[in-house]
Amino acid sequence: MATTLITGGTVVSATGRANADVLVDGERIVAVLEPGSELLGTDLKSGVDTVIDATGKYVIPGGIDAHTHMELPFGGTAAIDTFETGTRAAAYGGTTSIVDFAVQRYGERVQDGLDAWHAKAAGECAIDYGFHQIIGGVDADAIAAMKTLPDQGVTSFKLFMAYPGVFYSDDAQVLKAMQVSRDTGMLTMMHAENGPAIDVLAEQLIEEGKTDPYFHGIARAWQMEEEATHRAIMLANLTGAPLYVVHVSAKQAVEQLAWARDKGQNVFGETCPQYLYLSLEEQLGASSEEWGNFEGAKWVCSTPLRSREEGHQDAMWQALRTNDLQMVSTDHCPFCMKDQKELGLGDFRKIPNGIGSIEHRMDLMYQGVVTGEITLERWVELTSTTPARMFGMYGQKGVIQPGADADIVVYDPNGHTSIGLGKTHHMAMDHSAWEGYEIDGHVDTVLSRGKVIVDDNAYLGAKGDGRFIKRGLTQYLV
Amino acid sequence: MATTLITGGTVVSATGRANADVLVDGERIVAVLEPGSELLGTDLKSGVDTVIDATGKYVIPGGIDAHTHMELPFGGTAAIDTFETGTRAAAYGGTTSIVDFAVQRYGERVQDGLDAWHAKAAGECAIDYGFHQIIGGVDADAIAAMKTLPDQGVTSFKLFMAYPGVFYSDDAQVLKAMQVSRDTGMLTMMHAENGPAIDVLAEQLIEEGKTDPYFHGIARAWQMEEEATHRAIMLANLTGAPLYVVHVSAKQAVEQLAWARDKGQNVFGETCPQYLYLSLEEQLGASSEEWGNFEGAKWVCSTPLRSREEGHQDAMWQALRTNDLQMVSTDHCPFCMKDQKELGLGDFRKIPNGIGSIEHRMDLMYQGVVTGEITLERWVELTSTTPARMFGMYGQKGVIQPGADADIVVYDPNGHTSIGLGKTHHMAMDHSAWEGYEIDGHVDTVLSRGKVIVDDNAYLGAKGDGRFIKRGLTQYLV
Amino acid sequence: MATTLITGGTVVSATGRANADVLVDGERIVAVLEPGSELLGTDLKSGVDTVIDATGKYVIPGGIDAHTHMELPFGGTAAIDTFETGTRAAAYGGTTSIVDFAVQRYGERVQDGLDAWHAKAAGECAIDYGFHQIIGGVDADAIAAMKTLPDQGVTSFKLFMAYPGVFYSDDAQVLKAMQVSRDTGMLTMMHAENGPAIDVLAEQLIEEGKTDPYFHGIARAWQMEEEATHRAIMLANLTGAPLYVVHVSAKQAVEQLAWARDKGQNVFGETCPQYLYLSLEEQLGASSEEWGNFEGAKWVCSTPLRSREEGHQDAMWQALRTNDLQMVSTDHCPFCMKDQKELGLGDFRKIPNGIGSIEHRMDLMYQGVVTGEITLERWVELTSTTPARMFGMYGQKGVIQPGADADIVVYDPNGHTSIGLGKTHHMAMDHSAWEGYEIDGHVDTVLSRGKVIVDDNAYLGAKGDGRFIKRGLTQYLV
Amino acid sequence: MATTLITGGTVVSATGRANADVLVDGERIVAVLEPGSELLGTDLKSGVDTVIDATGKYVIPGGIDAHTHMELPFGGTAAIDTFETGTRAAAYGGTTSIVDFAVQRYGERVQDGLDAWHAKAAGECAIDYGFHQIIGGVDADAIAAMKTLPDQGVTSFKLFMAYPGVFYSDDAQVLKAMQVSRDTGMLTMMHAENGPAIDVLAEQLIEEGKTDPYFHGIARAWQMEEEATHRAIMLANLTGAPLYVVHVSAKQAVEQLAWARDKGQNVFGETCPQYLYLSLEEQLGASSEEWGNFEGAKWVCSTPLRSREEGHQDAMWQALRTNDLQMVSTDHCPFCMKDQKELGLGDFRKIPNGIGSIEHRMDLMYQGVVTGEITLERWVELTSTTPARMFGMYGQKGVIQPGADADIVVYDPNGHTSIGLGKTHHMAMDHSAWEGYEIDGHVDTVLSRGKVIVDDNAYLGAKGDGRFIKRGLTQYLV
Repeated sequence: MATTLITGGTVVSATGRANADVLVDGERIVAVLEPGSELLGTDLKSGVDTVIDATGKYVIPGGIDAHTHMELPFGGTAAIDTFETGTRAAAYGGTTSIVDFAVQRYGERVQDGLDAWHAKAAGECAIDYGFHQIIGGVDADAIAAMKTLPDQGVTSFKLFMAYPGVFYSDDAQVLKAMQVSRDTGMLTMMHAENGPAIDVLAEQLIEEGKTDPYFHGIARAWQMEEEATHRAIMLANLTGAPLYVVHVSAKQAVEQLAWARDKGQNVFGETCPQYLYLSLEEQLGASSEEWGNFEGAKWVCSTPLRSREEGHQDAMWQALRTNDLQMVSTDHCPFCMKDQKELGLGDFRKIPNGIGSIEHRMDLMYQGVVTGEITLERWVELTSTTPARMFGMYGQKGVIQPGADADIVVYDPNGHTSIGLGKTHHMAMDHSAWEGYEIDGHVDTVLSRGKVIVDDNAYLGAKGDGRFIKRGLTQYLV
Repeated sequence: MATTLITGGTVVSATGRANADVLVDGERIVAVLEPGSELLGTDLKSGVDTVIDATGKYVIPGGIDAHTHMELPFGGTAAIDTFETGTRAAAYGGTTSIVDFAVQRYGERVQDGLDAWHAKAAGECAIDYGFHQIIGGVDADAIAAMKTLPDQGVTSFKLFMAYPGVFYSDDAQVLKAMQVSRDTGMLTMMHAENGPAIDVLAEQLIEEGKTDPYFHGIARAWQMEEEATHRAIMLANLTGAPLYVVHVSAKQAVEQLAWARDKGQNVFGETCPQYLYLSLEEQLGASSEEWGNFEGAKWVCSTPLRSREEGHQDAMWQALRTNDLQMVSTDHCPFCMKDQKELGLGDFRKIPNGIGSIEHRMDLMYQGVVTGEITLERWVELTSTTPARMFGMYGQKGVIQPGADADIVVYDPNGHTSIGLGKTHHMAMDHSAWEGYEIDGHVDTVLSRGKVIVDDNAYLGAKGDGRFIKRGLTQYLV
Repeated sequence: MATTLITGGTVVSATGRANADVLVDGERIVAVLEPGSELLGTDLKSGVDTVIDATGKYVIPGGIDAHTHMELPFGGTAAIDTFETGTRAAAYGGTTSIVDFAVQRYGERVQDGLDAWHAKAAGECAIDYGFHQIIGGVDADAIAAMKTLPDQGVTSFKLFMAYPGVFYSDDAQVLKAMQVSRDTGMLTMMHAENGPAIDVLAEQLIEEGKTDPYFHGIARAWQMEEEATHRAIMLANLTGAPLYVVHVSAKQAVEQLAWARDKGQNVFGETCPQYLYLSLEEQLGASSEEWGNFEGAKWVCSTPLRSREEGHQDAMWQALRTNDLQMVSTDHCPFCMKDQKELGLGDFRKIPNGIGSIEHRMDLMYQGVVTGEITLERWVELTSTTPARMFGMYGQKGVIQPGADADIVVYDPNGHTSIGLGKTHHMAMDHSAWEGYEIDGHVDTVLSRGKVIVDDNAYLGAKGDGRFIKRGLTQYLV
Repeated sequence: MATTLITGGTVVSATGRANADVLVDGERIVAVLEPGSELLGTDLKSGVDTVIDATGKYVIPGGIDAHTHMELPFGGTAAIDTFETGTRAAAYGGTTSIVDFAVQRYGERVQDGLDAWHAKAAGECAIDYGFHQIIGGVDADAIAAMKTLPDQGVTSFKLFMAYPGVFYSDDAQVLKAMQVSRDTGMLTMMHAENGPAIDVLAEQLIEEGKTDPYFHGIARAWQMEEEATHRAIMLANLTGAPLYVVHVSAKQAVEQLAWARDKGQNVFGETCPQYLYLSLEEQLGASSEEWGNFEGAKWVCSTPLRSREEGHQDAMWQALRTNDLQMVSTDHCPFCMKDQKELGLGDFRKIPNGIGSIEHRMDLMYQGVVTGEITLERWVELTSTTPARMFGMYGQKGVIQPGADADIVVYDPNGHTSIGLGKTHHMAMDHSAWEGYEIDGHVDTVLSRGKVIVDDNAYLGAKGDGRFIKRGLTQYLV
C-alpha cells in the first residue's frame, strides 16, 4: 500500500491544535507525529511514497455532511444531483463523507427503500456514504423492518411532522417509531414543522393571491417550527428516545432545544448554512431579469429562510457557540430553476423545496471562523467530529488519529474561494444559491481513505471511489 | 533522552477513543501510532528504552487539578499539605498538574504574594504546578500589578464575595478587577457566596447556641450562593469579563450559570467531588467516638455540603453532563481534626474550611463512569482536557498528541482502589474525608514529563521533579 | 316586586371586604349600603319584605361553575345528572349559575347541537345557565355557524385535542377554528391532551393486561397534557386567538401557561377540585368491598388525577395564588358506578370519564381558605368574579353591586359541612367522589335572582327557576 | 353632616363597571345604588344636600400615589414641593392620598425621622397622607424602633441598595431589616440598584469627561438594576420577607420579578410614568436655548430613563398588563432647573435626582387606556385599588363601597387636558417634565372625604384638609 506524509501543518481537532505530521499507510492514518520526525533514527519523509507539504495550513478531518438528498423524488420531480455529481461536488468542497436519506413511503417496504438507495449509490460515489432511513409510513411492518436496520449499518431514521400525504407521520406514528428508537438505540431524526397547520395557511395565502416564493416562508411561520420542535421533544421525553432535530432555523425552536438540553434530555439539533447567512427579507427582494420576483424560488426550502429583523440568523450562530445546536449539515436538495423550481410559478406550494450547498459547507463555515462567529476548533467539531460521533462513525471518521480512515483536508487560511457559476460550481443545478459569496480560505487538498481526490482545484478521483459506511449507534448521548 | 512506548492501550480523549500506542521521547510525546506499529519497517518496541504494556487499560492525559490550596493560611492555621506532600499525593492519584492559588491580602503587594508562593513551591513539587492569583485587596496598586501577571504565566485571578475582613471584595472592587479581566483576557475566578449576609446568619446561629459543624451549612444557605453567582454574572455581563465560578454546589447556582450560558455569555463553573458525593444530611449525622457530633467538622468547607433531599448532588452530576459545569477540581484545602478543625469546637465559624481530595479526584470521577453518571470521554474532558483549555495549558497539557508533555496515566478499569487511612492516603491530614469509598478502577502508572513517577502503588519520583507552568490565556472562550 | 335586605354580613369581593347590607328589589341588587342604614331617615329594615340576618357571615356573589356536562352522551352512556338534578345540587352548594356545553359532532350541524341543548335545559333548571359550544367537527359549515353564536349569547367554543374519532380536532381544524375566535372575539376553550399518542399508550397497556382504572392515568401521561397545552398556545399565538385551557392538572402544563402569560399572550386556564385534592396514588390504592380495585373508576376523569409525589396538587394551588390559573370549575360529568363506570371493567378505556363535584365546589374551595392556600377574596374571585368576567357575564353575575342579578350566597365560616352519601349528596350519582370530606364552613342561604332557593339545607326553589344567560364577549383580555 | 349624591355615572372598579349612584354622607360613602333610585319610595336626589351629575363620566376611587418625596433633602438641596404645594397639585390631578417617605439616616433615631415628617406634613396637606419609613442606617437601635412603627400606622419601610454614604444599606443590613419585615408583616420596599458598582462607573465616566446628564443613565446600567433586583429577591426568599421593588424601569428587572412571582414568592413592583413614556434617547437629544445639552437634567432620576431601542418602555406596559408590575406611582421628587438641577452642571453626579409627576399620574395612565395599553379597570386597579391593598388602606381607600372614605374622582373621557407650564402645572418646579403632553380625558371633580376640593379646574379645598392615614399591614400577600 502507498504511504503518504502530510507534513508541516497544523492539525486541528475539536479541542485544539497540534503542530504535527500525519502518516498515512494505504487507506488509514497510522501515526500522528512531531513535525519532521526522525522516529528512532528513521527519516519518515524519505521513506514515504508521497509527501504533502502543509506548511502554514490546517490539516483537518474531512468534512461529513450528514444531511443530503441525492436524486430525491419530490414534488413531481427529483433532486438534480446524482450520487455521482453530488459527491464529486462534495469532494471539491472538502467533504469526504455524506449520510444520505433512503426513503420509505406509506405502503412501501422499508427494506425496498433502503435497497433502492443502495442501488442508486453503489459504484457512483466519489466519497464514502452512509444512509439514514426515512420512514414515511409507520405501521407494524415498518416497525419490524426498522429493527433490522442497525445490523445493516443504518442507525438513524427520520420522521416528518410536515408534508401530510407525502412523508407525514401523525403523533401516534411518531410515538411508535420513537419506541423503536428507545429500544434499539437508533437516533430519531425529525423534520419538525406542523404540516397540517402550515397547509391551511398556505392554502389561505394562495386563495388570497399571495403566490410568490416569499409566501412560502410566511406560511411556514416560526410558530409552526417551534411548536413541532416542542412536540417532538415531549414525545421523546415520554418514550426515552434520543432526538435529533434537522434543519433548525427559528430562534424559538432553539430555545426549546436549549430548554430540554438544560434538563439533561438527549436532544440535538443541526442547522444549515442557509439559516446562518440568508434571510426572508433577501428572498422577498430577490429578483432577476429572467425570473423576476420568482427568483426567490432558488431559496425555497423547508424549514424556510427566516427574518433577519427578528434575529434568527444571529441566534443560529449563537446556538452553534453555546452548543444548543451541535452540527451544521447542508440539507443538500438541489433543484434547477428551469423545469424544476418553475413548477411553482403561480403557486409557491409547487416549488420543489431545497437548496444545494454540499460543495460550500466547509468554506461557508470557515468564513464564520474568519468573522469571529466560531473558533477554528468549533469549525472542525461542527462539520466533522460531531457528525461522526452523532451518527456512529467516530474513530473511523471525524478525527485524525491512528486507525482512522485517511479522510483529510488540507485547508489554506491564506487562500481564497469565490463561489458561483463558472467559478467553483460543480453541482448539477443551473444556478448557485450562494452566487457571489467570497471565502477567505481554500480547500487545497482532499484525501479520501488515503487517496488524493482533489488537489489544486482538480478532481483526481474516480466514480465509485466511495464506499458504503456501515455506521454504529450514536456515540454522542449524555 | 530516554524513550518510552506505551503500547496496547486505549487512548481516551475528550471526544473518543483510539487503540493506539504512544511514543515518548524525553519529556514529550512524539507520536501516537497504530498499535504494534512497525513504522516503515522499524520495530518501535525494540527500539525504545522502556515499553509499558497498557493492554486492557486506558491511556489518558494526566489529571489537572486546577483548584488547590497548599499551605494556605486560613483561620489562624494553615492547610496541612505542603507542596511536597500535596503534589506527591496528587501523583499517587493520577494528577500530574495543579494550579494553586498565590495570595494577596488587603494592604499587601500582589507581586509579593506571588513571589511568596513561588518560594513555597520551588523545588518541592512532585508534579508541574501553576498559579492563579488571589486578589484580596483590589486597589490601584493591585490593579496595576494584575496587569503584569499574564507575562509571568499567571493568567487568572480569584476574587471572594465571601469572607469579609479576610479576602472579601465589595462590588466596586469586583467591577474594577473585572475590567482588568476584560482588558487583559485574564479569567476572573469567583468564590460566589454573599459573605456579609452569611456572617449575619452565622452570628445569629451562634447566639442561638447552634454551634455544631452542621450549622455551617445552614448559615451558608443556597440562596446566598445563588445570589452571588447571579451578581457575578451580571457584573461580568456589564464589563465583558470572562467568569469562572469555583466550587459550585447549589443547583440554583447552576441554573444561573445555565441561564447566562444559554445567552452566550462566557461564564463557566467547576464543581468538586464533595458536592457530587457528600451531603448536609450525612454531615448532620456524622459522629465518632473521638469527636462526637464534631466529627462533621471534617466536611466543613465553603461552599458547604448541600441537602441531598433537595437534590443538589443529582443536579451537579446532571450539570456535568449538560456542560453547564465544565470541570471538576478538588478545592484541596486540608486541615487535621487535631489542632486545626478543633479550633471550631463550640463555634463552627472557627473551623478551618476545607476538605482534602487531591489524591482521589481521578478515582472518584472514574466511579461516575462506572455508575453511568458520565461517559469515559467526559471523564477525561472534565479532569484534564478542559482544565488545560480553560487555564491556557492545552497543547502542553490535557491531551495526548505530539508535542505535548508526556503527562500520562495508565488507568486499569479492572483494578480496584480502597480509599482511607492505611489504604491509599498520602495526604498530610490525620483523617480522610473519603474514608471507606471503594473505586472500581485503579491508577496503575503515572508519567510526568516522560518520567514514571508512580507505578504499581509505588512512588518513583523525587521532590522537585515538578516545574512551574507558565500558562497562556484561556483557550475556552466562545 | 318583593324586597329583601341582607344585613349585618361581610360582603366579600375579589379585592376586599365591606361591612355592608345588600338591598334586593325583585330580581336585582339595587343598593349596597352601610349596615343598619337609615338612609336619609328611612329605616330600610322595616321597609323591606324580608330581612336576612347575615351577622358573622360572608355575603358573596353566587358561585359560577363554568364547566359542566349535564346529560352528556359519552362512551355509550350519558352523564347521569339532568339539568334538573344537576342544577338543584349546584344550588345546594352555593352555585347559582352554570355554563354547560352544547355539543356538535362531526357531521352534525352546530345550530342543531345548540338547539338540542336548549331543549334539554329549558324549564328544567334551578339556577341560571349558559352554554359554550363544543365543536367536534370543524368544517366550512361549522365555521359559518360558529360566527352566528355570539348573537345567540354563546361566546365561547371548545375544541378537543383528545378523543380521536369522537370530539377530536386535528391541528388544521384547530387553526381554522381559532381564526374564528380571533375574528369574532369568542374564547377558544381547549381540552389539551395529545389524544392520538395517548390512544397508542392506552392500547399498549391493555395489550399488556394493565386494565385497571389506575392505568387510565398512566396512559394520559403529563407529557401529553404539557405538549398539547404548548401546541394550543402556539396555534393561538399564530392566529391571535384568546385561549382558555380547561381542567389543567399537570404542573408542567401550568409552566407552559405561565410562560405564555409572562409574554403577554391572552392565555388562561382553569383547574378543578379533583386536581387540587385527589391524586393518582390514592386512585391506585382505592378499593371497596363491592368493586375491589375497580373502585378507582369513580375518579377516572380526563385530564386524569396526577401523582402527589410529583407535586402536581401543590403546583395547582400555587398557580391559583400566582394567577397562572384564573378559575376553578368542576368539569362536572357524573356517572354511576353501576351500569356506567362498570362498562370499563376489564378495560379502563371504556370507563366513562368524569367526576361529579358541582355541589361541593364552593365548599371545597372554601376549605382552601381555611387551610391558608388562598385568601377569602381569592375564593370569591376564583369561583365567581373571574368566571363572570372570563365568560362575559360580569355586571349581571359575579359581583355584588347595583344592577346585578341578586345571585347571593350567605356563607357561614362557623358552620360545618360533611360531604357524602346520606349527608349532602343531591347529585344523581350512586356514590360520591368526595365521600368523607369535611368542610369548616357552610352554605346557609342561597338567592337566585332575588329568590331564596336554598335555606338551612332546604331546597325552596322550583324546576324552571333558572333562565338562559345570554353572554357577551369575554371581559378578561389583557 | 352634608350629603352628596353622585349620579348617572359609571362606577369603575378593579374588576368591572356599574351604572350606579354613589351616596356620600359626611366623610364617607354610605351607599352605592341603582341610578335614579327611589329607595323604598324615597327620592334620594331631592333629599341630599348636593347632587353631582356624572352622566357620561367615570366615577372612580381617588388616586393613591404611594411614592412621593415632599421636601426631601437630597444632594445639598431639597425637593421643591412642600406638603402644601405637592398635595394641592395632586388634588388637581385626581390623587386623593399619598404615601410619603419619612427619613432616618445613619446615626439618626428612627422615631425622630418619623416625627420630623409628621411635623412637616401636619396641617399642610390638601389630601390625606401616610408615611413609609426610610431606614438609612440599619443597626440595633433602628431595628428596635422599626418594630414600633406598625402601631403608629407606618407599615412599610424602604431600604436603598444604591447611594453609598447616603441611604445605602449593605447586604448584612438588608438581611437584618428583612427579618423585621418577616416578623412584623411590614412590607420591605427596595430601591434596587447596585450603588457601589454604579459609583465606580460614574466616576470613570466623569474622569473621561463624560459629564452630561445623559451619562447618568449610562452609569446606572440596566445590569445594575437587574442585579440588585435579583439580590433583593433572594434575600427576601431567604428571610421570608414580603418585598416591594420601587420605580422599576429595566425590562430585565421585570423578568426577575416575574421569575420570582411565578414561584409564588411575595414579590411586588411598581413602575412610574417616566419609565412608560420617556427614554434615554430623548434625554440624549434634549436641548433648550437656556440650558443647551443640560436640558436633559430635568429627566435625571434614579432608576434612570432607559433606552427605547432596547424596548424597556414596551416591557413596562406589558408588565402592567401581565401583573408582573402591580402599581404605578410617581416617585414625585421635584427639583427646579435653576439653583437645583444646575448643581450638576459639569458633573451629572451632582444633579439632584428626581422628576415631578404627582399632578399628572392619573391623566398619563388614563392615556394608556385611550391608546389601548391597559383597560379601564386596570387603570383604577393600578392607580388606586392596588395601592390601597398593597399598603394597608383598602376599605378606607381605594374602593367605592359603603364605609369607605368618600375619596372620589369624576373623570370625563370626553374631556381634554394639556400638560405644561401655564396650562395645568400646580407643582413648584420651574419646568414641567411632561411639557406638551396631551391627554384625552379630564379630571372634572375631586372629593376628598366627602368634600369637593377640585371642581372644573378650580381648587376649592384648604390647607390642612388632609389627615394622616394610619395604615394597616399589606392586604396583598398571596
